Amino acid sequence: MCELLAMSANVPTDIVFSFTGLAERGGVTGPHVDGWGITFYEGKGNRTFKDACPSSKSHIAELIKSYPIKSEIVISHIRQANRGCVSLVNTHPFSRELWGRYWTYAHNGQLTDYQATFSVSRFQPVGDTDSELAFCWILESVVNKFGEFEPENMNEVFQYISQLADEIRQLGVFNMLLSNGIDLMTYCTNNLCHITRRAPFGQATLIDTDVVIDFSQETTPNDVVTVIATRPLTNNENWVVLQPGEWKLFRKGELING
Amino acid sequence: MCELLAMSANVPTDIVFSFTGLAERGGVTGPHVDGWGITFYEGKGNRTFKDACPSSKSHIAELIKSYPIKSEIVISHIRQANRGCVSLVNTHPFSRELWGRYWTYAHNGQLTDYQATFSVSRFQPVGDTDSELAFCWILESVVNKFGEFEPENMNEVFQYISQLADEIRQLGVFNMLLSNGIDLMTYCTNNLCHITRRAPFGQATLIDTDVVIDFSQETTPNDVVTVIATRPLTNNENWVVLQPGEWKLFRKGELING
Repeated sequence: MCELLAMSANVPTDIVFSFTGLAERGGVTGPHVDGWGITFYEGKGNRTFKDACPSSKSHIAELIKSYPIKSEIVISHIRQANRGCVSLVNTHPFSRELWGRYWTYAHNGQLTDYQATFSVSRFQPVGDTDSELAFCWILESVVNKFGEFEPENMNEVFQYISQLADEIRQLGVFNMLLSNGIDLMTYCTNNLCHITRRAPFGQATLIDTDVVIDFSQETTPNDVVTVIATRPLTNNENWVVLQPGEWKLFRKGELING
Repeated sequence: MCELLAMSANVPTDIVFSFTGLAERGGVTGPHVDGWGITFYEGKGNRTFKDACPSSKSHIAELIKSYPIKSEIVISHIRQANRGCVSLVNTHPFSRELWGRYWTYAHNGQLTDYQATFSVSRFQPVGDTDSELAFCWILESVVNKFGEFEPENMNEVFQYISQLADEIRQLGVFNMLLSNGIDLMTYCTNNLCHITRRAPFGQATLIDTDVVIDFSQETTPNDVVTVIATRPLTNNENWVVLQPGEWKLFRKGELING
């Protein structure tokens, strides 16, 4: 299995604190040593850093922990390989352009007997994971239903994707993060939780390493920041645990659907 | 205008030496201060680092110069904005998946009156540069001609892309780098040159900063490495200058077509 981390915020915010906790799970406090990746959206642009080595030992993860990239949406993943070998091409997050936006996706879980379901041609996987193929099938299904250009009502698109995710969940464990750079969608099979931080901000203490942050020093009173993770990253805050089959849609840090 | 840099090699090779020279042109020896990016292929996988700030001042460029990522194909670009604002979304290289491979592209030059030519729907630009739109149009034209799955004869595909590039060149300056992770294509309007290094390897001296490398210490006798750049990066080697309208295709460091 793997671990997921994501953020949706109403102002460009760095994720150094949360990523520092997550990265420990890639070889120190967790067994997810088969690569890691992180995508930062900055406006419509994004950038992804990834490595096929453990996040706890990665030079590039060191950079991310020490260099506060400010972003409105972040998706991150640390990998314990089950389907597909350990390699850069199989490292999440995966990204594709659709409707003039970069869509980014990460999956925690494992699927079986999926080849017959996931027939694709326009969006083809580059690596050999069940995860990437499921992503391609979601995008292909979305284009088949909504056409070549972005529809006005994106809620309908995400509602439809939640139905696709319900189908995928029949094939195994499917915890998912998905973003088009505006909205951030989560889908839960068994392990996903979130927390929304807003004023008055307090202190938070990481579970996985000895780090404490005082968010009131780092934020303004108008900031709204939601963090999503496989398991809670802090031990003194109230994380909301998602139920099997539950999905949620966040925009600018606020829950807007699901 | 911008500067391009690329590498095709028959063994995973680092590009630290050449990138160190190029990065100086992003604010020290050259005026290209509006962002930079670099894509490394590692097998079918790839990863892109980019920044909207000058390469000579970028934390991430520092990482690239100090951390030798070994790759078979590299495409890099430092930007002096003309079309499109300075932002991450407009920073090259651009990447799209086609036929189960990541295609990566960078462009030096400027086009005019291109909107009517570049009609696209399947591959849409995310940013607002002439460069990214031309890339989308190339891929869309390729799919329209060759279909949804990779043809056996890729030479025909690149031959066709060279014809598309001839058309694009009617609209302005179009120096291009393009790769699908196996082949590396170059197309020249006015500024592109290359050098192929093989045994016996010698010393090379960068033009833009005080660095000398002895390739015989860094290579094995079987290594073949081609480097492509807008202008020569070294002052004691014989770079081959491409002619207007000329294109070349490299695989594993060797010239195979064009």
